[in-house]
Amino acid sequence: MTNLTIALDAMGGDVGPRVIVPAALQALASNPTLKLLLVGKPDAIQPLLAPFAHDSKAAELVSRIQIIPADNIIANEAKPSQAIRQSKGTSMRIALDLVKSGEAQACVSAGNTGALMGLAKLMLKSIDGIDRPALMTVLPNIEKGKTVVLDLGANVNCDSQMLVQFAVMGAVMAEELAGIQHPKVALLNIGEEDSKGLDNIREAAAVLKQTASINYIGYVEGNDLLTGKTDVLVCDGFAGNVTLKTMEGIVRIILSLLKSASTKNKKPSWWVQLAKKWIKKRIIKRFGELNPDQYNGATLLGLKGIVIKSHGAANEQAFIAAIEHAVHAVERQVPDRIAARLKIVLPKSEQ
Amino acid sequence: MTNLTIALDAMGGDVGPRVIVPAALQALASNPTLKLLLVGKPDAIQPLLAPFAHDSKAAELVSRIQIIPADNIIANEAKPSQAIRQSKGTSMRIALDLVKSGEAQACVSAGNTGALMGLAKLMLKSIDGIDRPALMTVLPNIEKGKTVVLDLGANVNCDSQMLVQFAVMGAVMAEELAGIQHPKVALLNIGEEDSKGLDNIREAAAVLKQTASINYIGYVEGNDLLTGKTDVLVCDGFAGNVTLKTMEGIVRIILSLLKSASTKNKKPSWWVQLAKKWIKKRIIKRFGELNPDQYNGATLLGLKGIVIKSHGAANEQAFIAAIEHAVHAVERQVPDRIAARLKIVLPKSEQ
Repeated sequence: MTNLTIALDAMGGDVGPRVIVPAALQALASNPTLKLLLVGKPDAIQPLLAPFAHDSKAAELVSRIQIIPADNIIANEAKPSQAIRQSKGTSMRIALDLVKSGEAQACVSAGNTGALMGLAKLMLKSIDGIDRPALMTVLPNIEKGKTVVLDLGANVNCDSQMLVQFAVMGAVMAEELAGIQHPKVALLNIGEEDSKGLDNIREAAAVLKQTASINYIGYVEGNDLLTGKTDVLVCDGFAGNVTLKTMEGIVRIILSLLKSASTKNKKPSWWVQLAKKWIKKRIIKRFGELNPDQYNGATLLGLKGIVIKSHGAANEQAFIAAIEHAVHAVERQVPDRIAARLKIVLPKSEQ
Repeated sequence: MTNLTIALDAMGGDVGPRVIVPAALQALASNPTLKLLLVGKPDAIQPLLAPFAHDSKAAELVSRIQIIPADNIIANEAKPSQAIRQSKGTSMRIALDLVKSGEAQACVSAGNTGALMGLAKLMLKSIDGIDRPALMTVLPNIEKGKTVVLDLGANVNCDSQMLVQFAVMGAVMAEELAGIQHPKVALLNIGEEDSKGLDNIREAAAVLKQTASINYIGYVEGNDLLTGKTDVLVCDGFAGNVTLKTMEGIVRIILSLLKSASTKNKKPSWWVQLAKKWIKKRIIKRFGELNPDQYNGATLLGLKGIVIKSHGAANEQAFIAAIEHAVHAVERQVPDRIAARLKIVLPKSEQ
């Protein structure tokens, strides 16, 4: 592994330096060649690093951190268009600038999604052949495989051409990140028949059917999100966000019901307690993979640089996962591979 | 309770008479004043009733069934527009005709959703003030309350006016079917800020904020589908279908994982088996409420008659649930109550 440098927007989201600094140290501990640029208010970051100065092992980690000062922050609730106009000097913009200048190979932010998406497109530009970047994540499925899902909310309105571009990018990611050869690609729809759904979906289906380099399998419904029926699930950002949030909500409910189950009734006998503990552990392990804290980190695909969006309310473990996504994306040279594939699949879209 | 008569499309869906006839008998057993009109091929229905002729108790149930002959069936995979044009003599159309003529007070079909929706609108007409009917269901939430969700797929494209109409109908249903006073109404969106989402959603929000008779609480995201944050969740048919199917898929996965859990490893000791059985039963009971087989039956709201759509692959228990929905809708005089409320809320929409 060669040296790699990742910029972290240390001020973005609800999380801030109190979560991001310890997550950064842990990520550095597990990636010996990683360097991190923490972009934010030095006054907020420095005190969190100070305690490690006296421990030689921790000091080595700290030595691979560089603080890049940024005085301003883009508010979570800011309207993206306005936030972008007023983005000068913000931690998010400076973090993206570091990717643009080549000082960092990727950037991670838990900040305002709309602003991140808009600024990233403005500063890093889209790959030739891509109209708009998309947010992508990789979910585990019950076949113990992986499913690539996009768009998760970057684009609420998508025309058929965008859906086709998402399909191409998703297929590349399934091959590169999940190691699936000739991945199955499906469009999310409300039925499996050709006549179902919205015009843009039907038009995208017609194009994908004609695209030999994509293993297009047809429409898939929401109930197949986790069944492994498809390796890549393509949808507009509205449907993708709704699907993912619905899944997250239900997984959270399951986990909380399981965790609280034993305290509700009168104390059961010891053997019931023991067996419940056993079965809860197994189910929590299984569904825990779908816990947003575990798979946190959506990749903003289709840019000439690597940008990872973390949940705004990520905890330390979740933010580490987002940094790891950035590391993998750099190692796999995601933008280059997508660009190369697009040249084959969509020759007419080249600029 | 006064006498009530419900027409069943006995041929619709994947289910057919083999599921519908026994479900009909069970529904009759629990509703002593119910009469059922089974619309379909007599040759397919009659033999399933014959065995009950010699049992006096069963014969009483059979005496409250009337077979209405229909030679044709609308195929599940038929394109709705074409199916509607060729609907003469089909079991679905005759069942709807019985509602139109007043011979039945409601109809239940597991057939082609698009065809049912189109035919129902054509034959029964929309309530004044409603542009297009919507599919609605009532889900249990973790607060042990109920959440009314619509549209579930009748309309893939919805303008803001339709969403407002759905909100009004949903509020009436929450009051009438779930007994919730002054129900909270929310729009499904991909964020809680005003600026989020699609134009039609933002426009509907602006109208609902000004509508004093609706307790509009704002946007709700997919992760709050089952948390009880809102009593009524309004969305277009595409998002509603995706959300519901996603939920159903995950619930099915949970149930199947729980059911299969004990057979995977080497045989555990008897007490572990016993305790596992106990806890599985509890969890299955809890999540079973969300099993499509339990809450089956979406109401086609906004028509001048009562039409219930059953899952196409409903089992006997599920089809009974759909018949029960029809019974309740008749008892609560759903169309009249919606019409009355619309006159108050949307005076300008009256025709």
